[in-house]
Amino acid sequence: MLKVGLLGAGRIGRVHAQAISAHPQSRLCAISDALPEAAANLADAHDSVARSSDEIIADPDIDAILIATPTDTHSDLIEAATRAGKAVLCEKPVDLDLQRAMACQANVAGQGQPVMIGFNRRFDPSFSAMKAAANAGEIGKIEMLSITSFDPAPPPVSYIKVSGGLFRDMMIHDFDMANYLMGDVPTVITAVGSSIVDPEIGDAGDVDTAVVTMTYADGRIAVIKNSRRAAYGYDQRIEMLGSKGLLQAQNVLENTVVKSTADGVVGAKPTYFFLERYMPAYQAEWAAFVEATLSGSDVPVTLEDGVAALAMAEAATRSAWSGGSVRMDEILKPVAK
Amino acid sequence: MLKVGLLGAGRIGRVHAQAISAHPQSRLCAISDALPEAAANLADAHDSVARSSDEIIADPDIDAILIATPTDTHSDLIEAATRAGKAVLCEKPVDLDLQRAMACQANVAGQGQPVMIGFNRRFDPSFSAMKAAANAGEIGKIEMLSITSFDPAPPPVSYIKVSGGLFRDMMIHDFDMANYLMGDVPTVITAVGSSIVDPEIGDAGDVDTAVVTMTYADGRIAVIKNSRRAAYGYDQRIEMLGSKGLLQAQNVLENTVVKSTADGVVGAKPTYFFLERYMPAYQAEWAAFVEATLSGSDVPVTLEDGVAALAMAEAATRSAWSGGSVRMDEILKPVAK
Amino acid sequence: MLKVGLLGAGRIGRVHAQAISAHPQSRLCAISDALPEAAANLADAHDSVARSSDEIIADPDIDAILIATPTDTHSDLIEAATRAGKAVLCEKPVDLDLQRAMACQANVAGQGQPVMIGFNRRFDPSFSAMKAAANAGEIGKIEMLSITSFDPAPPPVSYIKVSGGLFRDMMIHDFDMANYLMGDVPTVITAVGSSIVDPEIGDAGDVDTAVVTMTYADGRIAVIKNSRRAAYGYDQRIEMLGSKGLLQAQNVLENTVVKSTADGVVGAKPTYFFLERYMPAYQAEWAAFVEATLSGSDVPVTLEDGVAALAMAEAATRSAWSGGSVRMDEILKPVAK
Amino acid sequence: MLKVGLLGAGRIGRVHAQAISAHPQSRLCAISDALPEAAANLADAHDSVARSSDEIIADPDIDAILIATPTDTHSDLIEAATRAGKAVLCEKPVDLDLQRAMACQANVAGQGQPVMIGFNRRFDPSFSAMKAAANAGEIGKIEMLSITSFDPAPPPVSYIKVSGGLFRDMMIHDFDMANYLMGDVPTVITAVGSSIVDPEIGDAGDVDTAVVTMTYADGRIAVIKNSRRAAYGYDQRIEMLGSKGLLQAQNVLENTVVKSTADGVVGAKPTYFFLERYMPAYQAEWAAFVEATLSGSDVPVTLEDGVAALAMAEAATRSAWSGGSVRMDEILKPVAK
Repeated sequence: MLKVGLLGAGRIGRVHAQAISAHPQSRLCAISDALPEAAANLADAHDSVARSSDEIIADPDIDAILIATPTDTHSDLIEAATRAGKAVLCEKPVDLDLQRAMACQANVAGQGQPVMIGFNRRFDPSFSAMKAAANAGEIGKIEMLSITSFDPAPPPVSYIKVSGGLFRDMMIHDFDMANYLMGDVPTVITAVGSSIVDPEIGDAGDVDTAVVTMTYADGRIAVIKNSRRAAYGYDQRIEMLGSKGLLQAQNVLENTVVKSTADGVVGAKPTYFFLERYMPAYQAEWAAFVEATLSGSDVPVTLEDGVAALAMAEAATRSAWSGGSVRMDEILKPVAK
Repeated sequence: MLKVGLLGAGRIGRVHAQAISAHPQSRLCAISDALPEAAANLADAHDSVARSSDEIIADPDIDAILIATPTDTHSDLIEAATRAGKAVLCEKPVDLDLQRAMACQANVAGQGQPVMIGFNRRFDPSFSAMKAAANAGEIGKIEMLSITSFDPAPPPVSYIKVSGGLFRDMMIHDFDMANYLMGDVPTVITAVGSSIVDPEIGDAGDVDTAVVTMTYADGRIAVIKNSRRAAYGYDQRIEMLGSKGLLQAQNVLENTVVKSTADGVVGAKPTYFFLERYMPAYQAEWAAFVEATLSGSDVPVTLEDGVAALAMAEAATRSAWSGGSVRMDEILKPVAK
Repeated sequence: MLKVGLLGAGRIGRVHAQAISAHPQSRLCAISDALPEAAANLADAHDSVARSSDEIIADPDIDAILIATPTDTHSDLIEAATRAGKAVLCEKPVDLDLQRAMACQANVAGQGQPVMIGFNRRFDPSFSAMKAAANAGEIGKIEMLSITSFDPAPPPVSYIKVSGGLFRDMMIHDFDMANYLMGDVPTVITAVGSSIVDPEIGDAGDVDTAVVTMTYADGRIAVIKNSRRAAYGYDQRIEMLGSKGLLQAQNVLENTVVKSTADGVVGAKPTYFFLERYMPAYQAEWAAFVEATLSGSDVPVTLEDGVAALAMAEAATRSAWSGGSVRMDEILKPVAK
Repeated sequence: MLKVGLLGAGRIGRVHAQAISAHPQSRLCAISDALPEAAANLADAHDSVARSSDEIIADPDIDAILIATPTDTHSDLIEAATRAGKAVLCEKPVDLDLQRAMACQANVAGQGQPVMIGFNRRFDPSFSAMKAAANAGEIGKIEMLSITSFDPAPPPVSYIKVSGGLFRDMMIHDFDMANYLMGDVPTVITAVGSSIVDPEIGDAGDVDTAVVTMTYADGRIAVIKNSRRAAYGYDQRIEMLGSKGLLQAQNVLENTVVKSTADGVVGAKPTYFFLERYMPAYQAEWAAFVEATLSGSDVPVTLEDGVAALAMAEAATRSAWSGGSVRMDEILKPVAK
C-alpha cells in the first residue's frame, strides 16, 4: 500500500485525488493547498486530512508525493520531496525556466528517488496501442509523425500571461508525445505561430495557433499543429506514416449515435476537453506510478523526459519569434559555469 | 460490335441509351417508344433513329433488344424478340403476373437466345466485392443475410396502384440480391407490412414499410427491410454474418467532406436515388451483357432468376396479407393444366 | 446512504458489487452466495461481510437487496425481500416461467416496495442518447426499429439447456430495448430460428440464430436479429427509422486506432462482451436505482417491464417452434382461476 | 462544338482524349506525339487523326489545344498556340524554370487567348464542396489549412532526375490547392525534406518526404505533407480549421465493403492513384474549360495560377536546401533587365 500526500487541490489535483483513492494499492493520506479551504474540502470528500506541504513532505509515514501545484513551485517541491526520501509524481511542465529544470534534474540525480513527470497522454489507450503497433513493426520503418492537438477554447488572457506561452504550456504535451512515439528527440525545430484566434493573446505576447516541424538525425520528420480553439471540442489526433502503412489515432467521441436526415449524417462530437478525454489515461498513469514505486522498477516517464520536452518548447519559442530554425544541441548545451 | 435496338425511351430507357452509346462494342441503332416524340428526342441525342418496336424486332441487322417498356409488355416482347433471334436484356420485373412470367420462361426455353434480366444491383462494385469475399470464404460459412433498402421518397399513389405492390415493384430487387448472395432460394417466406409512411398508399391496397424474413433449407436466415421513404436519401446497405465474421456494404456518399462544429460532426448524405447510386452498376450490367452475347457465354442473370424473384414477391405478398408464413414450393408448383 | 445486501457473488454479482462500492451514496453491507467461499472472497475485496440470504433479507439495517442469483430463485427472493420491506433490484429475467413471473408481479403489487429489473442496456449512454433524440422528435414519427444483437461466442451447451432458450435468455434484453425505445409492446410477434452456429445447440432444443419481427397497433414494425456468435466481438447496434431520418447507435470499439496498409484499412474491433461494453451502463443503472430509492421516485425499469419482456420471449419461442405468428394478447391473458 | 487538337499521347494525354471525346460539346480532331505510333494508336481509338504538333497548331479549323507533352515544351507550345489564336489547356507545371514561366506569362498576356493550367484537383467533387462550404462561412474565419498528399509509390529514379524535384513535380498540386482554398498566396515558406523512403532519391539530389509550412499576411498558417510512398494507396486528404469548426475531405475508397473478423474491422483502401481518384476531376476540368471557352468567360485556373504555384515550389526548394525560411516576395521579384 502506497501512502500518498497530494500537494495542490485545484482542478488537476482533484483528478489525481480520485485516481489515488480508487486505486486498491494507494491511500490518499494528506492534502495541501495554498487555499486551506480547498485542501479541506477535497480531504473531506476523500476521507483524508488537510495539512501543509511542509508537514506532508516531512511526514515519515508518507511514501509518495503527488505535485499538482502551480508550475513555478514544481522544481523546489521535487527537490524537497526527493531529499525527504519520497517518490514523486509531478505534473507537467517541470518548470517554465529550462535552466531551473536542468538544475533540478542535476540536484535530484543523486537522491535516488523515483521522479515521474505527469505526461498523462502516454497512458491514453489509443496512443499506447499506436505505439505498440509501431514498435511491433506493423507499419515498417517510421518516416513521418503528425500530431493534431487543438483545445476547445482558449484560456483567459490572464492565464496566458503567466503560462509560459503556448509552446511551454500546451504544446509541451505534444513534444513529449513525439519523443514517446519517435523514441528520440529531434535535432532541429522550426516553429511558426500567430494570434489569429484572439488578437489579445498576441497582445499578451503569445500565439494561439502554431505549427512546429521537427527533423531527426535519421531523416524522419514530425509536425505538430496546435490551436487554442476548436469549436467542436477537444481534437487530439495522431498519425504515423511508415514504410508499410499508416497508423491513425482518431478522436474519442461522446457517444456512437449517428443521425441521418435531409441535412446530412451527423455523429457525436469529440469529448469536450482533457478531463473527459483523458480520465482513463490519468488512472492508468497513476497505476503505472504505483506499480513502479512499489516494485522498485523504473518510472515510465522520467524527469529527463520532462526536461527534454521543455527544451523543445524553448527551441520552438525561439524559432517562432526569430523566424529561423533552432538546433536542439544549442538549447541543450551545458549551462556555462 | 453489337447492334442494339432499345424499346422504351423513358427514364430507365435513357439510362440504358447512355450505357449502350458509351460502350465501345455496342451501337444504339434504333429506339422505339409509345410516345414517338420521346423516341425521337432520345434518338437525336445519340445519333440514332426512332422506329416502331415491331420494326426494330423484325430488323435482321439488329443483334440485341433492350426492353425498357412498361412491365405489362415485358413477357410479350421477350417472346417476340427471342423468336426473332435476338439476344435480350429486359428490365425487371419479368411480369407482375407470376403465371405469365413462368409461361414466358417456358416459351423462351426452346428458342436458344440469351435473355438477361436487368437486376442491375448485382453489378454494384460494393455488392459484387461483398459476394466475392463471401465466396472466397473470408467470413466462413454464411449464417445470416440482412438487406436494408429504403427509397428516398414514395412514388405517386397513381404509380403505386399499377406497380404490383411494394413486394413486386421495389423489394423484387432485394429478393434477387438475396438469391445472388445466398446462392439459393429460400424455402419459407414471412412478411409483415404497413402503410405508416402514407395512409393513402394503404388505401390503394399497398404497404410502404415492410420486413420480410426468409429461411433456407440449410438453416440460414435472411431478412429484408424496405421503406418507401428515407428522408436522408437512398439507403442501400447489406450485411452478411458468417462463422468467421461480418461483411457490410455501406452506403455510397455524395462526397467525402466532413464538417465538425459545435452542432456535431456532419458527413455527406447517401447519394439521392438509384440513378446516382447505381450508374456504374448499369454500365457494368451492360458490359456484362455485351461480353456474354458477343462471346456466346451464359448471361449472368437469367430469366429463371427473374421468375424466382417474382415468385418470392408473390409469396411475400400473400404472407403480408394473410399473416402467416408461405412455403416457396407452394408458389412455384407447376401450373395446373 | 443506501445500505445494500447483495445476493449472488458470481460474475454478474461481482459487477454489481463494484458499482455498489463505488457509488458515494450506497454501501455494500453484506453478500450471500450458494457457495460460501464465493461470498467470502467477494466480501473481502469490498470490506463487506458474507451472510446467508435469509439473514440479509431479515436484517432491519439493510435498505435494499440486489438479486444476482440463478434465475429460478428470482421470483421467490423478490417476494421475500419486498415482504421484508426492502427495495429490490433484480437481474433479468424475472423468471423463466411467465406464469410464475406474473404471479410474482401480483404478489408484489400490494407491498409498496420499489422493484427494479436489471435491464442494464437502457442505461447505455448511446442507447439513452438515441431514445432522447427520438423522443425529441429529431427523426419525426418513428416507423421502424431494427436491433442487431450478437454475442461473441455461444455459452456451453450445458448452460443452454437450463437457460430457458435464446429468446428468454438472450433476446429478452432486446425485447426490453424495443419496449424502451418504442414506448409500447407489440401486438404480434413472429420468430424464425435455427441452430446453424452449433448443431449441438439444436440437439439441446434451442436455436442459436434468430430473427424476430414485431408489429405494433399503430403500424410500426420492429425486427430483432440475434446470433450466439460474432467472431469479431460483441455486436450491439440499433437503428430507428422515422419520417424525418434515421438514428443509429453503432458499436463501441476497443480503441480509436486505424491502420492502413496494403491489406486494407483496419480499425479496432467492438469491445469483446457485455462486461467491457456495458460497464458504464451497470454503473448508471445502479445510480438510477439509488436515486429513485432514496428520493422515493419511481424506478425507471419496473417489474411490469420485466414481465412484458418475458411475455415477448414466450411469444417468440412459441412462434419459432410453431412456424406461425403469435398475438401478444394470447400470451398475456389472465391466468385462468 | 469545340474542335480540339491534343498534343501528347502519353498516359495523361490518353486521360484527356477520353474526356474530350465524351464531352457532348467538344470533338477530338487531331493528336500529335513525339512517337508517331502513340499518336496513331490513340487517334484510332477515338476516330481521330494523327498529325504533327505544328500542323495542328497551324490548322485554322482547330479551336483549342490541349498540351500534354513533356514539361520542357509547355512554355513554347503555350506561346505558339496562343499566337495562332487558340484557346489552351496546358498540363501542370507551366515550366520547371520559374523565369521561363514568368516570361511565358508576359508573352501570352498580350495575345488575348484563354490559357488554363491543368490543376485538376480543383475540380475534385470533395475539394470543391469543401471550398464552397468554407466560402459560405460554414466554419467561420479560416485559420489553418493542412494538406496530406502521399503517392502510392515513388517513380523511377530516372524520372526523379528530370522531374524538377518533389516540390515542382509533386507538391505543386498542393501549392495550387492551398492557393485555391486560401484565396491568397503565402508570404513566407519553410520546407524540410529528407530521402528516407529511398536513399537513391537522395543521391539523385531530391527528397521523397517533405513538410512545408506557409504563413499568410493575415496570420493564417498552412502545412503540406508529402511522401512519395503510401503503401495503402493514394492518400489525398485536406483539413481546414476555422473559428467555428473543421472541414475535412477524406479519402475516396475503392468500395464501401467493411469486413469484421477476429483480426479487426477492415475497410477498403483509398483508390490506388490519381487516375482512379481524379478521373471525375479530369472530366469536370475539361467541362469547365469547354464552358469557359465557348461562352467567352474567364477560365477558372489561369496561367498566373500556374506561375504562382511554381514560385512556391521554387521557394520550398530553396528553403529545404538552405535550412531557412524564404519570403515569397524575394522569389517573385521582377526579372532584372
